[in-house]
Amino acid sequence: MFIKNTWYVACALTELEALGDKPLGRTICNEQMAIFKGPDGKVAAVEDFCPHRGAPLSLGKVCKGHLQCGYHGLEMGVDGKTVQMPGQRVRGFPAIKAFAVVERYGFVWVWPGDQAKADVAQMPVFEFFDNPAWAYGGGLYHVQADYRLMIDNLMDLTHETYVHANSIGQPEIDETPCETKVEGDQVILQRHMEGIQAPPFWQMAMSANGLDPQAKVDRWQICRFTPPSHIMIDVGVALAGKGGFDAAPEHKAYSVVVDFITPETETSHWYHWGMARQFKPHDTDLTDKIRAGQGGIFNEDMEMLQLQQVNINKWPDRKLLMLNIDSGGVQSRRIIDRLLAEEHTPEVTA
Amino acid sequence: MFIKNTWYVACALTELEALGDKPLGRTICNEQMAIFKGPDGKVAAVEDFCPHRGAPLSLGKVCKGHLQCGYHGLEMGVDGKTVQMPGQRVRGFPAIKAFAVVERYGFVWVWPGDQAKADVAQMPVFEFFDNPAWAYGGGLYHVQADYRLMIDNLMDLTHETYVHANSIGQPEIDETPCETKVEGDQVILQRHMEGIQAPPFWQMAMSANGLDPQAKVDRWQICRFTPPSHIMIDVGVALAGKGGFDAAPEHKAYSVVVDFITPETETSHWYHWGMARQFKPHDTDLTDKIRAGQGGIFNEDMEMLQLQQVNINKWPDRKLLMLNIDSGGVQSRRIIDRLLAEEHTPEVTA
Amino acid sequence: MFIKNTWYVACALTELEALGDKPLGRTICNEQMAIFKGPDGKVAAVEDFCPHRGAPLSLGKVCKGHLQCGYHGLEMGVDGKTVQMPGQRVRGFPAIKAFAVVERYGFVWVWPGDQAKADVAQMPVFEFFDNPAWAYGGGLYHVQADYRLMIDNLMDLTHETYVHANSIGQPEIDETPCETKVEGDQVILQRHMEGIQAPPFWQMAMSANGLDPQAKVDRWQICRFTPPSHIMIDVGVALAGKGGFDAAPEHKAYSVVVDFITPETETSHWYHWGMARQFKPHDTDLTDKIRAGQGGIFNEDMEMLQLQQVNINKWPDRKLLMLNIDSGGVQSRRIIDRLLAEEHTPEVTA
Repeated sequence: MFIKNTWYVACALTELEALGDKPLGRTICNEQMAIFKGPDGKVAAVEDFCPHRGAPLSLGKVCKGHLQCGYHGLEMGVDGKTVQMPGQRVRGFPAIKAFAVVERYGFVWVWPGDQAKADVAQMPVFEFFDNPAWAYGGGLYHVQADYRLMIDNLMDLTHETYVHANSIGQPEIDETPCETKVEGDQVILQRHMEGIQAPPFWQMAMSANGLDPQAKVDRWQICRFTPPSHIMIDVGVALAGKGGFDAAPEHKAYSVVVDFITPETETSHWYHWGMARQFKPHDTDLTDKIRAGQGGIFNEDMEMLQLQQVNINKWPDRKLLMLNIDSGGVQSRRIIDRLLAEEHTPEVTA
Repeated sequence: MFIKNTWYVACALTELEALGDKPLGRTICNEQMAIFKGPDGKVAAVEDFCPHRGAPLSLGKVCKGHLQCGYHGLEMGVDGKTVQMPGQRVRGFPAIKAFAVVERYGFVWVWPGDQAKADVAQMPVFEFFDNPAWAYGGGLYHVQADYRLMIDNLMDLTHETYVHANSIGQPEIDETPCETKVEGDQVILQRHMEGIQAPPFWQMAMSANGLDPQAKVDRWQICRFTPPSHIMIDVGVALAGKGGFDAAPEHKAYSVVVDFITPETETSHWYHWGMARQFKPHDTDLTDKIRAGQGGIFNEDMEMLQLQQVNINKWPDRKLLMLNIDSGGVQSRRIIDRLLAEEHTPEVTA
Repeated sequence: MFIKNTWYVACALTELEALGDKPLGRTICNEQMAIFKGPDGKVAAVEDFCPHRGAPLSLGKVCKGHLQCGYHGLEMGVDGKTVQMPGQRVRGFPAIKAFAVVERYGFVWVWPGDQAKADVAQMPVFEFFDNPAWAYGGGLYHVQADYRLMIDNLMDLTHETYVHANSIGQPEIDETPCETKVEGDQVILQRHMEGIQAPPFWQMAMSANGLDPQAKVDRWQICRFTPPSHIMIDVGVALAGKGGFDAAPEHKAYSVVVDFITPETETSHWYHWGMARQFKPHDTDLTDKIRAGQGGIFNEDMEMLQLQQVNINKWPDRKLLMLNIDSGGVQSRRIIDRLLAEEHTPEVTA
């Protein structure tokens, strides 16, 4: 069960554009979709099922904004209604589901649930996208694990010490207590480490930002979960004693780890990850270097999460521990559970 | 459920012969068979299960017409009875099923159902095999889809416009209405297109047959379904106005697409495809060229059918449309359903 | 269902040591284990499930004899109790199962069942390991088949004639009756062939041992099954008329085929195979040559057993024959069934 009356990242716009006149087939919250650009150039998403003979529409191609089935040429419109088909009157053809779509921040966002409730006003807002003072680079992983395991992973960064020992991990993460608070539907978990040596990834960022990579630093991690499954993590280092997170820009290297976690099925998800940074935003080589580094680091989590899922499948009744370090994931899951319950509560009208 | 009291193509004789002294293991209508040449050189088929310890007999080899199990040397006869086994008295060994076999037209045909009803007189008759005025070339595909999806495919050639756009497809197929009729157990669907440009495949055939490939032509497609799942399609082009299908041989390029569709399981089948042609029957280079072309074209259907099957599996309750263009498949399925019902009706004896 | 209150080979010590500071994950009788060297250098085995978040402990590493989870650093002790975890009090953490382990004969042995009953005195005893008069070489195969199919295979060597026709098989095996006897929990099946030509593998061994490979020989096979699933096979050839199995060492080439068959799941097992020999024990090149030969021969059984398993899965209700040649397997299975029943009989206390 997923929260479905909400916006999820379906794909990056670049993914869709790389396909030319082909649509993109993707499953979001168990809904199979064919995503394509309609007659006005706007992205649309419809069920990936041709009403004629059940062929996947995603095998077809886009002709003047209609999605032409690759089997017998039925042309599907952005609203899920058949536009035309050679030699046929199509008015009586059954419609397929069309999904509300928003293009924003370089991504295609879809609303997989009740279309009557799709509400653009509920789109999350991010200051760093489409902002010339910031740069963004990222990628996509397809992960064979419950999307909530990825939330757990990102809302407890003590795993960095073990999973990412050679890049961003360091013992001080384990040694420094974290603080978790819930504000409405948001969970915020933070950890501030003072007067430490920067780990390799941050030494690289310090050098890129003109700072001495060997200098002692204050390091912070502020994880922010918002439903359904977006996690933004303020991460950075400032020269020790300059104010940490609040230090002046010239004393720090600072960025936001961006995680859009989109459920595919109960045991798989699409993980759109990236990093937004405020320093050297025009240095595209640096963007590429960070993307490569981050991609490598995040790839280290894949095996762990996927085999954790295998283990949980084998021992479904075994209770897991919920320690203080797990509070970020625990609180996030509580919010998900509450919203799920609300979504499935019958509405009462006066 | 399959019509089982009937003849299916199990394999091409060349497939079996290519294996030397090894048998061929194949599943037909859920019946696992080991096919081999018996003591008289005639092809036989028995269950692929050694009565000794359950090893697949198809892993063994043929010794003087007996199928010797590759595990402990039990020798199976063409009648499903054990002939001998080192150091054993085999008379009490349980027999395995033996399937009636006919070798004809270059194929091995089997009767997977009630062996008491196997009747050579029910073998279909084809004029173009073993006929020096004709040439034949073909191949085999293993398709992960219900065999009836292949029947639908072949009994509605409007898909050529989309799936085979670069070879035999052309818009005129969509634009020209087809006519479907049922004659006993046979379904005939035909389409005649007049005064059109030949598509690439037929231009090649026209050149091969000494005709100007750029000339306007009359083109025909006459699909004939006969149970359980054989489809012969008269296809060809004649110079425009020369009589179409009935034109004199020197004005046309004409052939028969041969489709023997053999169910393997509920969601997979063996597709023996080929082309029989009346022109230049002794030109073996042309046979090879046509086979390569046809193989490439038919391969374009594989992905579509297999993913259509995946989609149907996911939405098993969703009704598909039955348009006029689908009438060939619809009528063919009706005949299959009627014969299936007949096969499962208890016989009444006076 | 497996006999679980007994010792199985979990792995070769060399397998574990090749992993350095990494543990070895392995499933034995459906029990998933992480195997590692504890603080005293002794091998330990615990459930492969971190009590914190369910990650496989086998993805972690060994730190000073504790198994550190690769996700968040929990350190597991050899007794299944958490030793420590950064920033946590671990006393209340749920314990996981720890398995009794014995290191002997170059292997790690585990007791997958009731740990209260684990009894080192029940370890099998082999004279040829750790004995300078003998040499041993072997390997490991992972087989997708019920472990009892491997017992059947090894307790009926008539299959050698068919499966291993080019190495150790010869028609005389089939032609010579075997004798089976049961002594307590042991099944002994023997076959003595006199005045025959040695097959290729034994010709090689004769040459290695300074005997004329073309000389007529007496050949023996004495298979000894002991529960749960160990099979030792005395195999060899002696110059004809010199006493066969009892001939003086200079007239024979003689060894013991060692088979430790460890169930993984109901339809898969770990097959530790090897050969112990009394001739030229210090010739490591010969050890390698025999290992390569034996590995190749035993690999010929893999396809047969795995496809036999597939066939048995398809026809689960079909009875298999139990011929005289099968008596070794039949008697071995009877002992397994009896011990299984005993293991599942409630104990009565006075």
